[in-house]
Amino acid sequence: MLTNTRSDRVRSVQALSRRSMRSRTGFFVVEGPQAVREALAHRPDHVRDIYVTSRAAARHGDLMSLATGAEARVHEVTEEVLAALCDTESPQGIVAVCRMLAVDLDGALDGLPPDAVVCVLTNVRDPGNAGTVIRGADAAGADLVLVSEASVDIHNPKVVRSSAGSLFHLPIVAGLPIEQILSSLRARGVALLATDGSGTTLLPDVDLTRPHAWVMGNEAWGLPATVRDACDVVVRVPIHGLAESLNLAMAATLCLYESARIRHG
Amino acid sequence: MLTNTRSDRVRSVQALSRRSMRSRTGFFVVEGPQAVREALAHRPDHVRDIYVTSRAAARHGDLMSLATGAEARVHEVTEEVLAALCDTESPQGIVAVCRMLAVDLDGALDGLPPDAVVCVLTNVRDPGNAGTVIRGADAAGADLVLVSEASVDIHNPKVVRSSAGSLFHLPIVAGLPIEQILSSLRARGVALLATDGSGTTLLPDVDLTRPHAWVMGNEAWGLPATVRDACDVVVRVPIHGLAESLNLAMAATLCLYESARIRHG
Repeated sequence: MLTNTRSDRVRSVQALSRRSMRSRTGFFVVEGPQAVREALAHRPDHVRDIYVTSRAAARHGDLMSLATGAEARVHEVTEEVLAALCDTESPQGIVAVCRMLAVDLDGALDGLPPDAVVCVLTNVRDPGNAGTVIRGADAAGADLVLVSEASVDIHNPKVVRSSAGSLFHLPIVAGLPIEQILSSLRARGVALLATDGSGTTLLPDVDLTRPHAWVMGNEAWGLPATVRDACDVVVRVPIHGLAESLNLAMAATLCLYESARIRHG
Repeated sequence: MLTNTRSDRVRSVQALSRRSMRSRTGFFVVEGPQAVREALAHRPDHVRDIYVTSRAAARHGDLMSLATGAEARVHEVTEEVLAALCDTESPQGIVAVCRMLAVDLDGALDGLPPDAVVCVLTNVRDPGNAGTVIRGADAAGADLVLVSEASVDIHNPKVVRSSAGSLFHLPIVAGLPIEQILSSLRARGVALLATDGSGTTLLPDVDLTRPHAWVMGNEAWGLPATVRDACDVVVRVPIHGLAESLNLAMAATLCLYESARIRHG
């Protein structure tokens, strides 16, 4: 039982809230039973340590079995230590330290099906938005998410939380320049669909029968002209009322579900 | 020029961050140039006072003209007073005090078109979610939003902010019991479509050619059985990947845009 909220171990987990420390160590923190369960179920080899209170361990027996199967080291901790490990205000008794997700664009592109649907995020800065888009991409059955280097770190605790486990459900490649992402997709015959309020093609009119990538930009200022110009078409979600725009996560979800509609009927 | 951050006037605006004080006075606070502009443009008779720094007044001349037309009282304030009036960490130089939106269900229902699309929220507790759904309803061209009594206050600063001005774009009636909302809609021939992860009808299969209301529940636990049973059908947004669910705002936006697709083609 770990009882010391100021131990070196606790400090080393706390340090992972900083992007620089995540980059240096290659590890990040996953909070709460739902996200930890998804990590154990879908990326068991990525889970290194689990910190859990006795109360949470009793409540989530299924999770403890998964942890044993995954060969993750399980540490029982006091409520105080758990709270010290957490970024959230209301920790739910369990935290995992996981190895960061891989960065292999070519491998990810090799794995795409012929009717691929890809989601590309560039210059997305708000972690809640990024996590929600990843969750939406997962729900819509997208095959791959690519996050450019000029975006929020996908291992940021708020991204992990708002993705609601989806971070572990589909391949995500982060940290590459947007130019490389777009040219690699193009080389594989994936159509590039920019989404932007300035688009001239309305969402329902886009040809989604080819493999395609939705390219989404910053929450406030959309896509830079260089990115729009590098895409095959600039798509706009129709606005029927008086709203000026939709937020990024809503627009992304609508686009990705439009792809799902074509694919799954 | 108001310079005293501790004046009675400043304190009376600050007090409006509390629901009880909003209920007692009938006023609420709107922050930032975009939301204040939408209030002035679409509900000018609701805007009582505008507090603005000289810098923001110079930058938003259009807004100052609107304020004059609306007969709102404009008060120039120091940056310190403005910050004291704001709920946000980064105030953008302007705050308005507005009269709360009306609560007249019958009037709102009388105003519905024959192909009405209505959005009903019940037990929604997260202000960001509620505001984002209102923004989505606006963008999708919905005619009316009804928020039940057991939900977050639509005049909460975070709801106002996340609605991005949409609070002033379409009729919103809040504070009534869900039973009254549902029976009033039914009496007008509006089909009641519950949305819930337990639904047996998939979104693309719902008949949206009749006037209809989307009924959405709590972020975490969905709709109570009594509400589901009172509806004509329980609809589920299809999940194609491994995600357990979509968040409320995403599911609502997808449903409301499905209505827009039928209505607008």
